[in-house]
Amino acid sequence: MAPPSLVANGGDIAVGKPPVTSRVSSVYSEVQNSRLDHPLALPSVFAKPFKVVDGPSSSAAGNPDEIAKLFPSLFGQPSAVLEPSETSDSGSALKIGVVLSGGQAPGGHNVISGMFDYLQERCKGSTLYGFKGGPAGIMKGKYVVLTPEFIYPYRNQIQKERAQSHWNTQNKFSPVSVLTKIILKKNEIAHEKTMGGFDMICSGRDKIETPEQFKQAEDTATKLDLDGLVVIGGDDSNTNACLLAEYFRSKNLKTRVIGCPKTIDGDLKCKEVPTSFGFDTACKIYAEQIGNVMIDARSTGKYYHFVRLMGRAASHITLECALQTHPNITLIGEEVASKKLTLKKVTDYIADVICKRADLGYNYGVILIPEGLIDFIPEVQQLISELNEILAHETVDESGLWKQKLVPQSLQLFELLPPAIQDQLMLERDPHGNVQVAKIETEKMLIQMVESELELRKQVGQYSRQFKGQSHFFGYEGRCGLPSNFDSSYCYALGYGAGALLQSGKTGLISSVGNLAAPVAEWTVGGTPLTSLMDVERRHGKFKPVIKKAMVELDGAPFKKFASKREEWALQNRYISPGPIQFTGPVADISNHTLLLELGVEA
Amino acid sequence: MAPPSLVANGGDIAVGKPPVTSRVSSVYSEVQNSRLDHPLALPSVFAKPFKVVDGPSSSAAGNPDEIAKLFPSLFGQPSAVLEPSETSDSGSALKIGVVLSGGQAPGGHNVISGMFDYLQERCKGSTLYGFKGGPAGIMKGKYVVLTPEFIYPYRNQIQKERAQSHWNTQNKFSPVSVLTKIILKKNEIAHEKTMGGFDMICSGRDKIETPEQFKQAEDTATKLDLDGLVVIGGDDSNTNACLLAEYFRSKNLKTRVIGCPKTIDGDLKCKEVPTSFGFDTACKIYAEQIGNVMIDARSTGKYYHFVRLMGRAASHITLECALQTHPNITLIGEEVASKKLTLKKVTDYIADVICKRADLGYNYGVILIPEGLIDFIPEVQQLISELNEILAHETVDESGLWKQKLVPQSLQLFELLPPAIQDQLMLERDPHGNVQVAKIETEKMLIQMVESELELRKQVGQYSRQFKGQSHFFGYEGRCGLPSNFDSSYCYALGYGAGALLQSGKTGLISSVGNLAAPVAEWTVGGTPLTSLMDVERRHGKFKPVIKKAMVELDGAPFKKFASKREEWALQNRYISPGPIQFTGPVADISNHTLLLELGVEA
Repeated sequence: MAPPSLVANGGDIAVGKPPVTSRVSSVYSEVQNSRLDHPLALPSVFAKPFKVVDGPSSSAAGNPDEIAKLFPSLFGQPSAVLEPSETSDSGSALKIGVVLSGGQAPGGHNVISGMFDYLQERCKGSTLYGFKGGPAGIMKGKYVVLTPEFIYPYRNQIQKERAQSHWNTQNKFSPVSVLTKIILKKNEIAHEKTMGGFDMICSGRDKIETPEQFKQAEDTATKLDLDGLVVIGGDDSNTNACLLAEYFRSKNLKTRVIGCPKTIDGDLKCKEVPTSFGFDTACKIYAEQIGNVMIDARSTGKYYHFVRLMGRAASHITLECALQTHPNITLIGEEVASKKLTLKKVTDYIADVICKRADLGYNYGVILIPEGLIDFIPEVQQLISELNEILAHETVDESGLWKQKLVPQSLQLFELLPPAIQDQLMLERDPHGNVQVAKIETEKMLIQMVESELELRKQVGQYSRQFKGQSHFFGYEGRCGLPSNFDSSYCYALGYGAGALLQSGKTGLISSVGNLAAPVAEWTVGGTPLTSLMDVERRHGKFKPVIKKAMVELDGAPFKKFASKREEWALQNRYISPGPIQFTGPVADISNHTLLLELGVEA
Repeated sequence: MAPPSLVANGGDIAVGKPPVTSRVSSVYSEVQNSRLDHPLALPSVFAKPFKVVDGPSSSAAGNPDEIAKLFPSLFGQPSAVLEPSETSDSGSALKIGVVLSGGQAPGGHNVISGMFDYLQERCKGSTLYGFKGGPAGIMKGKYVVLTPEFIYPYRNQIQKERAQSHWNTQNKFSPVSVLTKIILKKNEIAHEKTMGGFDMICSGRDKIETPEQFKQAEDTATKLDLDGLVVIGGDDSNTNACLLAEYFRSKNLKTRVIGCPKTIDGDLKCKEVPTSFGFDTACKIYAEQIGNVMIDARSTGKYYHFVRLMGRAASHITLECALQTHPNITLIGEEVASKKLTLKKVTDYIADVICKRADLGYNYGVILIPEGLIDFIPEVQQLISELNEILAHETVDESGLWKQKLVPQSLQLFELLPPAIQDQLMLERDPHGNVQVAKIETEKMLIQMVESELELRKQVGQYSRQFKGQSHFFGYEGRCGLPSNFDSSYCYALGYGAGALLQSGKTGLISSVGNLAAPVAEWTVGGTPLTSLMDVERRHGKFKPVIKKAMVELDGAPFKKFASKREEWALQNRYISPGPIQFTGPVADISNHTLLLELGVEA
């Protein structure tokens, strides 16, 4: 490990004491404390000497010719697999940087812990730099040198022989608020910590895009003499990681770049990367809430709960929550798009189920709605794209004259929408110029539209009950929960594996841990060429590489299982209440339906 | 137990098979399943022979003379305490009814399980009737005879020697969706079950109020030859229970009535009843979400999260969540009322903290708001009471002429409110004619008001950051969670104790379990005269008995602890993430801060 004197300017030094921002004593919850003792297994390939072997060469997810042009150094490189070996290289010390990019996802800290432990155990004398605040930290050269003491409070499993001793001797005792006679073994901690979100080095949404920004990243890599950089992020961030890998390679820099699949949305995955981390925990947190709301709905007997779930464009989270809880209605954006449903059709579908349930004596229910739903409805897409155009180029006058710029069908739809939704559609765009779907209260919109529809049916005698909608949005509370045992282990393996890939000189790969339905010991470890996940999009007249979002596949096992059950769930009450995530006991290590169905383990 | 042939008309018979409404096979989540194995301890007084002894005679919480007039048979009766004894009466068979009244609270099923087990074990041959859908079930004579098979899926701890054998022989195997190789012992269940909410016999909000309704209750009690009735409910329901006890006594009916303290709001408590059940679980569920949002806030660094919490008038839930999570700002309704704060003052307080945090470099935070907040603001109370009056007697015209009926101060306040809040204030009232505070989005109102205030400060150079508010309402998802270990044990003891009180011929008492900071074995069991909790309110020229809601006491230990910390929490980031409720492991049995502080156990 680099002694403090070697730490360059711009870096907070955190050796043997908490970082500046958290020097003031703080305490942990009892559950957080208990997580420090959670043992993390590693895939058994790490138990003995191993080597990194190459798989077959790769292509691209689409337009390989264009991808080859965009990534001349990297295109076609083989995947990498860790295999048992007779001997193991005793690795030389490495200087590695790590950055968290994009939205939060439970488990990010464990990726860093895994990397750190790999370097500590296999490449003695290595230094791990944590870039602060996302990719901006790379560009600005803002980082912290990660030490056992710094990382300790963020990991599930303390490496007692190392960190604990440092900690005890160099830090004051700050008692945990003691609620019971339980004596917590690890209550000698004075450090702001969490294990769910990204506040160890914080994340950021900046991108390294312009030639100047690439040069800044190069300067940082050169200044710190980086052997490698690990980018923990979603599809955009991993695309960026690949561009950086290509750039460094083209400049003959020694800095390798490895990606890690992070997103609660679950839309960054492929055969070799069966899931993104965070998805498991987030879905379980949402499903707990949904299960509770279901019991409440049935107990009270008078509300329809419309639950919108985070997840951006893809409906994976909504689908997984449906598989966990069996709601009466679940809207899947990809199906709505595929069937070209209109808002009216969606509304009618919900109203139909409500009427049928009324006939059976049920005046309550639970309905799941993906965050990105309205983006999937063709007529709404049309409206939004017209609005994007108008908002970019026109002044929007109070009197509403601007509406004349809409085509008649879009104007009609716009006027049909409740005023609050109209307002939300006119709100600011995200940095990419997209409607911020998270800000559109689709659940409230649907409640109002269903209410109107049921009112009409009442007038013609098709419905006679009183409809009461309750709206929910489950989002932020799922991004930063304590990671489930699955995510904890998965992240640790991803980070540990990333260390192995860097040590073996790999670049432009995404850390890939497979065979996830088996016990951790049997998991496979390797790396998949990022270029093999790429396609191109044409933007502003240029080809731009993108990792295609993995959307819900309507012929995939998770959707098919849902589709085979939904009619039953609609009319009968098959609610399941998953309860809170458990970290110990017989149910703690179960992963999620989507993953197991896709792996063919669950029927 | 009464054989099916003895069951009167109107009752669903559920012996050896699931009830009609749930005869269709259904499955449980793994956590629900695991809860069936959770062992429930009982207070040690039940381990040996015991007797019920009288304490000193009682008075009332206020206006004892009026209470004495309203409850001539019951007023002044002593409390009851269970004490070890040389011998125990072998109880004769009893016919007991039980009803769930009012809103959901986690643990209700365990009260029923406790009662049931008491009757099974101590008064062999007893019958327990579950009245369906709340007090309406009593009036209409709608009930189900509770049997081991019926109760089994609702309890944490199956009495294997009884229920399991019945179950296995008479029910088809419906496999739990198997996610892992874990083999769950109890997967031979085909029954809709939950253990959180009230869907065993369902709850209801009807009241037994008119002479006709009392007569209906009498008819049911007579028809079923009831020895006793247990009412599980909040302050209103227990008031109702006491009126029913008085009525039955005055009519020389043998039917005794015992209450049980149920409400997540935590506002039904006194010295002998240290807490109401459900509070512990609900607060932990909300605190989990708040802790997650805090990590997200700190990771993202750009949002102020305004979290409104359920809890009706009292701010106990908000205070407890603050003690568990250490938010930057916590509004306590009782303090706002005591200090006679205006909405402007509350807004300024929030804006002040935001500005100070901005100076420290923090552009994010978490703010807790009790559901009943605006009801506590004197000027808003005045406005609401004027609106109540106007809505009761006037037509509200679209043109807004009705507003002239408001006094100038109220009109000014009304016009100051964001339009969405104006709309919500005009919404329908609850059956008591009160504004439905749960429907008023106070969190959004405050975001808008704080935004305007910060905009003004920006113009005069006092604030230079960009304020972004995110609103949350945590409510329904906390009422029907799986009960925490504390609530599970507390409810079971409350129910078991209620059985003992009925057996000893007591009436008009509320089941009281004390010494709750100690292990369950050391808990005390007894009953407190409901009249001793009563005061009167004058309504429509008449005295009406009410159990006074226990509000947050500003000189109580929980508030004082909060008040001593809040400045530190405001500016420094002392966030604690409690994580999900754990049912096993070292932290599973911890109860809540409010209870332990009030018991003087926690400093």
